[in-house]
Amino acid sequence: MSLNTFGHLYRVTTWGESHGPAIGCTVDGCPPGVALTEADIQPWLDRRRPGTSKFTTQRQEADEVRILSGVFDGMTTGTPIQLMIENTDQRSKDYGDIASQFRPGHADVTYHLKYGVRDYRGGGRSSARETASRVAAGGVARAVLASLVPGLKITGYMVQMGTKPIDRSRFDADQIGQNPFWCPDAAMAADWAVYLDDLRKTHNSVGAVIEVVADGVSPGLGAPLYGKLDADLAAAMMSINAVKGVEVGDGFASVAQKGTQHRDVMTPAGFLSNHAGGILGGISTGQQVVVSVAFKPTSSLRLPVEGVDIDGNVVDIVTTGRHDPCVGIRATPICEAMLALVLIDQALRHRAQCGDVGAVSPRIPGHVDG
Amino acid sequence: MSLNTFGHLYRVTTWGESHGPAIGCTVDGCPPGVALTEADIQPWLDRRRPGTSKFTTQRQEADEVRILSGVFDGMTTGTPIQLMIENTDQRSKDYGDIASQFRPGHADVTYHLKYGVRDYRGGGRSSARETASRVAAGGVARAVLASLVPGLKITGYMVQMGTKPIDRSRFDADQIGQNPFWCPDAAMAADWAVYLDDLRKTHNSVGAVIEVVADGVSPGLGAPLYGKLDADLAAAMMSINAVKGVEVGDGFASVAQKGTQHRDVMTPAGFLSNHAGGILGGISTGQQVVVSVAFKPTSSLRLPVEGVDIDGNVVDIVTTGRHDPCVGIRATPICEAMLALVLIDQALRHRAQCGDVGAVSPRIPGHVDG
Amino acid sequence: MSLNTFGHLYRVTTWGESHGPAIGCTVDGCPPGVALTEADIQPWLDRRRPGTSKFTTQRQEADEVRILSGVFDGMTTGTPIQLMIENTDQRSKDYGDIASQFRPGHADVTYHLKYGVRDYRGGGRSSARETASRVAAGGVARAVLASLVPGLKITGYMVQMGTKPIDRSRFDADQIGQNPFWCPDAAMAADWAVYLDDLRKTHNSVGAVIEVVADGVSPGLGAPLYGKLDADLAAAMMSINAVKGVEVGDGFASVAQKGTQHRDVMTPAGFLSNHAGGILGGISTGQQVVVSVAFKPTSSLRLPVEGVDIDGNVVDIVTTGRHDPCVGIRATPICEAMLALVLIDQALRHRAQCGDVGAVSPRIPGHVDG
Amino acid sequence: MSLNTFGHLYRVTTWGESHGPAIGCTVDGCPPGVALTEADIQPWLDRRRPGTSKFTTQRQEADEVRILSGVFDGMTTGTPIQLMIENTDQRSKDYGDIASQFRPGHADVTYHLKYGVRDYRGGGRSSARETASRVAAGGVARAVLASLVPGLKITGYMVQMGTKPIDRSRFDADQIGQNPFWCPDAAMAADWAVYLDDLRKTHNSVGAVIEVVADGVSPGLGAPLYGKLDADLAAAMMSINAVKGVEVGDGFASVAQKGTQHRDVMTPAGFLSNHAGGILGGISTGQQVVVSVAFKPTSSLRLPVEGVDIDGNVVDIVTTGRHDPCVGIRATPICEAMLALVLIDQALRHRAQCGDVGAVSPRIPGHVDG
Repeated sequence: MSLNTFGHLYRVTTWGESHGPAIGCTVDGCPPGVALTEADIQPWLDRRRPGTSKFTTQRQEADEVRILSGVFDGMTTGTPIQLMIENTDQRSKDYGDIASQFRPGHADVTYHLKYGVRDYRGGGRSSARETASRVAAGGVARAVLASLVPGLKITGYMVQMGTKPIDRSRFDADQIGQNPFWCPDAAMAADWAVYLDDLRKTHNSVGAVIEVVADGVSPGLGAPLYGKLDADLAAAMMSINAVKGVEVGDGFASVAQKGTQHRDVMTPAGFLSNHAGGILGGISTGQQVVVSVAFKPTSSLRLPVEGVDIDGNVVDIVTTGRHDPCVGIRATPICEAMLALVLIDQALRHRAQCGDVGAVSPRIPGHVDG
Repeated sequence: MSLNTFGHLYRVTTWGESHGPAIGCTVDGCPPGVALTEADIQPWLDRRRPGTSKFTTQRQEADEVRILSGVFDGMTTGTPIQLMIENTDQRSKDYGDIASQFRPGHADVTYHLKYGVRDYRGGGRSSARETASRVAAGGVARAVLASLVPGLKITGYMVQMGTKPIDRSRFDADQIGQNPFWCPDAAMAADWAVYLDDLRKTHNSVGAVIEVVADGVSPGLGAPLYGKLDADLAAAMMSINAVKGVEVGDGFASVAQKGTQHRDVMTPAGFLSNHAGGILGGISTGQQVVVSVAFKPTSSLRLPVEGVDIDGNVVDIVTTGRHDPCVGIRATPICEAMLALVLIDQALRHRAQCGDVGAVSPRIPGHVDG
Repeated sequence: MSLNTFGHLYRVTTWGESHGPAIGCTVDGCPPGVALTEADIQPWLDRRRPGTSKFTTQRQEADEVRILSGVFDGMTTGTPIQLMIENTDQRSKDYGDIASQFRPGHADVTYHLKYGVRDYRGGGRSSARETASRVAAGGVARAVLASLVPGLKITGYMVQMGTKPIDRSRFDADQIGQNPFWCPDAAMAADWAVYLDDLRKTHNSVGAVIEVVADGVSPGLGAPLYGKLDADLAAAMMSINAVKGVEVGDGFASVAQKGTQHRDVMTPAGFLSNHAGGILGGISTGQQVVVSVAFKPTSSLRLPVEGVDIDGNVVDIVTTGRHDPCVGIRATPICEAMLALVLIDQALRHRAQCGDVGAVSPRIPGHVDG
Repeated sequence: MSLNTFGHLYRVTTWGESHGPAIGCTVDGCPPGVALTEADIQPWLDRRRPGTSKFTTQRQEADEVRILSGVFDGMTTGTPIQLMIENTDQRSKDYGDIASQFRPGHADVTYHLKYGVRDYRGGGRSSARETASRVAAGGVARAVLASLVPGLKITGYMVQMGTKPIDRSRFDADQIGQNPFWCPDAAMAADWAVYLDDLRKTHNSVGAVIEVVADGVSPGLGAPLYGKLDADLAAAMMSINAVKGVEVGDGFASVAQKGTQHRDVMTPAGFLSNHAGGILGGISTGQQVVVSVAFKPTSSLRLPVEGVDIDGNVVDIVTTGRHDPCVGIRATPICEAMLALVLIDQALRHRAQCGDVGAVSPRIPGHVDG
């Protein structure tokens, strides 16, 4: 992983800026012979698309993906798959002042410090618009995983918005798609709607925690020591815009646990608990893989704030573009995509070294994973 | 980063098992002309060394490092630096039962599931003993950073043990080296001694949070999007044994913050706060870089527990080797080393693309970083 | 270098098939602040473009390049540069039989053996059409090199066609652009025209040797041992379609030389000869870098030949598409591009590790390179 | 491939200098469960060992390899394998003048220009002594290949020394191990002995061509476009000390061939010829893979020559160390090792993407490869 490429064997290279003509990515290393059309990818993009409720940015983008290469007669050929999404609703005039100013909490200043030059329109390369490419690449990854690790299922949802966590006792997976927040707790979803509406009216923003899980992960995925499955997941999630923390399994809560509490006891019928989040020593156990991701509040706000401009002058900064009051809302499909990208890459790496993948391991007689 | 190599340009490849003849690493890509002898590396290893207090494992290892290549007349030559540490106090007989059993919460089972064969003695490759190589490589990195980014300072310390966090109002950096816990709060260090002694007597264990900071980081380090500074830090820390969570800056606490609270206001004299932990858009701002790392409780315990063996039989598992009751204690020098490794790698990557490194950026007139 | 990405720090990922909607590449890791527009890239593409003389394929492609990202206000921003070239003159019906047959000497059969599925139209991914992306990426590399290593000059030319080598005593660099063969020997260019016309009429083909040189290469480029400058050049050239051999400096001729003949004597005024081709121990000396590349004859011929089809049946194979009778003719700009890509990547790698690049080395007083 | 690491999935990182305490390498990514002891590696090292005939350097090295990690109970564990060879016969005093002088044709000057500092003793890192590590790593690769691609056989031999090529009509594979030159032509071996003796007495040296072939390579190996099998082979061979040229199949000779001559016709019983050297479009066809490698004459000679020293002064340079009059002699086991390293890496890469390896492809019914 480096620069704009993610993955080692299933390699995704993204390109494009928020207000350029298009964005996209190249998926290289994809196994051949997997059925794939735009229709397999578009639904994932539609879930991330802006402008679908009053709680997200009002920028209207069709986010229509085109496959330009690597697929022939509806089948992947093993050659690079180019996915392109045209930008259609750029309103660059919104960003006039930003050309010479730095929004606090935003990458404006660091891109300037690093490169000396930047495409400031809509945040340019640092915009969350780039995550559409991740979701598209993740869509391809899901199609491949479906053939390689049958039974694998990836699910993301929001477990906390601002100060308001869900009530785990009300967790209902069927609720996740029934509200604009990907919230598994129907009562909390209603609370959040009111809470976020209030925030939106005061032009403020708030953070969120997304949890993303994978069921049916085959045991043995993960390349210790520096390609551990959890190390890859941490990097993948932390590379998403606005993320400030990542946990696996019990995460920071495991600090206060005693060894006797935390250790997941293994029986012939499987593990009795999953504090580890499905990963031990950087390798999947076959249990559910569980990752939590902390998103900070949106930094682009209409509320004015003191700042400096490119010449070092003190200025009042007001951001007039269209923004999400809680970036975490649209982050669920993105976290899912990153999990898919990590899993497919690790599955191919495991197959390279160890020759098998996807099967329930026969290495412990009678062992049932999960 | 993949398999057993960490870093892209400053590349560290570690090798060795807990109870083999030696462990070590190759540092490749090191800039030439940096003064270096074993004496520059040994002090860092001595800080991580086991057996120095009753709170850590009683295994006695001199951890004496030898430079076998890459240094000539006390100067790095730009060629690979081989660092070797011989293992001297292996007591492999302690591990007899482990050959065919899996300690709960430990990598025993996943190495078996992945590879089908493993060196079970002392955890083999999955043992925390490997971290000595990281600390050695980090020692070299510090020597290089001293010449490349003068003024850079890396400091780690423990901020929570089990249920007991430090009191930030009593934070005193001078205390860090004065107790066996790298604790900046003298009163809490005394509490922890009692707390851990109790745990030790009941043969139980507990987790910890390590915080590690870097002062004097030059602005501009970090390669968006998939080589972001924070993504690299997350992977680096998560790759350490027993880590379950990583935060940058305010981390999970930023979720409950409003945008107006979280955004760090920039003035001609610098930033007014540092909720971001010194990183925006994956690039360093020039402020203090702040990372928090959650360690789970030690999983190897003398307290018996039900488990399965390699043939799927139910067995009672008792671990009789020597172990740390709180692995977090010796983790502070390891987290520091990983931070050093990330920073030197990013500094070289930045120099490659942008040509300068280490200087306070002249790109915003009058701008004082930090 | 792996799969469809070339380079380590200046990374080019190409995508696209001969008869798909478009081809292109992502240039990642490009230094920021370099002036760049389509007009800087197009001239290099025009030199490689098919259909410009009767000696090359009659496929008509404008090969018009578009920059979709990574450039803002005429300046590179350090973010990925996406270059796209639309395919406009695909005549896929020419390739009907090829769907189930394998042209001898062509990648048809190996793509089938490896992937089980392939885009057979025009050779799909294995078509030399992909080299347009290399030339485009090389155009960007030249713009960067112009700012990083001023005075660097890359020149390619053909030194042998079929059985007919040039006469070195008639070498005139000014002739290179004056004939359709990039031939520095005007008399031989005239011979080749007749020779190739005869071949063309008999529907046969022939090979060629391209020599490509770089003047003004700064000393010190090359990363021993496995990133040697010559190792990178060998891989770069061998990765071009139809290449079967690569030499540096005297190449295979150095086998028959004695040590006293081959060694290039160094004086305060520079080297007295250049048998080494500007590279010693994998590192540039500052002399002219010289690489020779052997191209095999085109394998797609109208002359029928026995072969097998996808079901193992014996068939008569006749290729009816449009092809170059000597692929070496259009290879000169491609070899130049690959040399540019290797040099920019090595220059950035050198700057990363050693901090300087492009200057005449001050390390030997009075030393004049070249 | 970069710096001192070769390979992508089967990764070899070498370290060490000619006159340091030891040299060695880390083999990372090795499949688990392969039987391996020092005795499997030592024979390959013994073939490359210096001092075994009067035609090679008189330096006496046991070249005894030790496995320090990655193998347990005689079986690879999938973790890094550290191989170490101690240096025992360093005579560094031979190299006194070299500290401040540059041998013509040698890497002395370029290491100085690149790094500003170098271990000059015996050529330090640029010494061919490093190739012992390659041969050791290649020995491990052969053990793995034996289990992964049964029937694979790698054979190297010398086909030209100086001005004297072998007579192909006298080619006898059984002769290869019967003379000190790995020569398959017994009559020519006798000629070479006289020829080289004469050269040695005049303190001069000469080059050589090594040919190395692999039988039983499974079809489908090679990752187009920039990880082509032939591109990897070109880089691998060019990375060996003193190599100036690489050919695949007919190489430069294919230039003068017509398309009808060069294309290898395929029949249900296999190919009728092998001009391609077993590779089409960068992918193995299943035929014999054939690579030729040109070695220049040894540059370290006792015959004095004018040169410059580190201060730019004109000096007389005389090399008094022990050297091979024809470095090509000991190059045969090295070329074989590099071929093994490329094949194992490509086999793992193929298995990752396509899932199978080593089997005769069933994709063309009745097709018999080779």
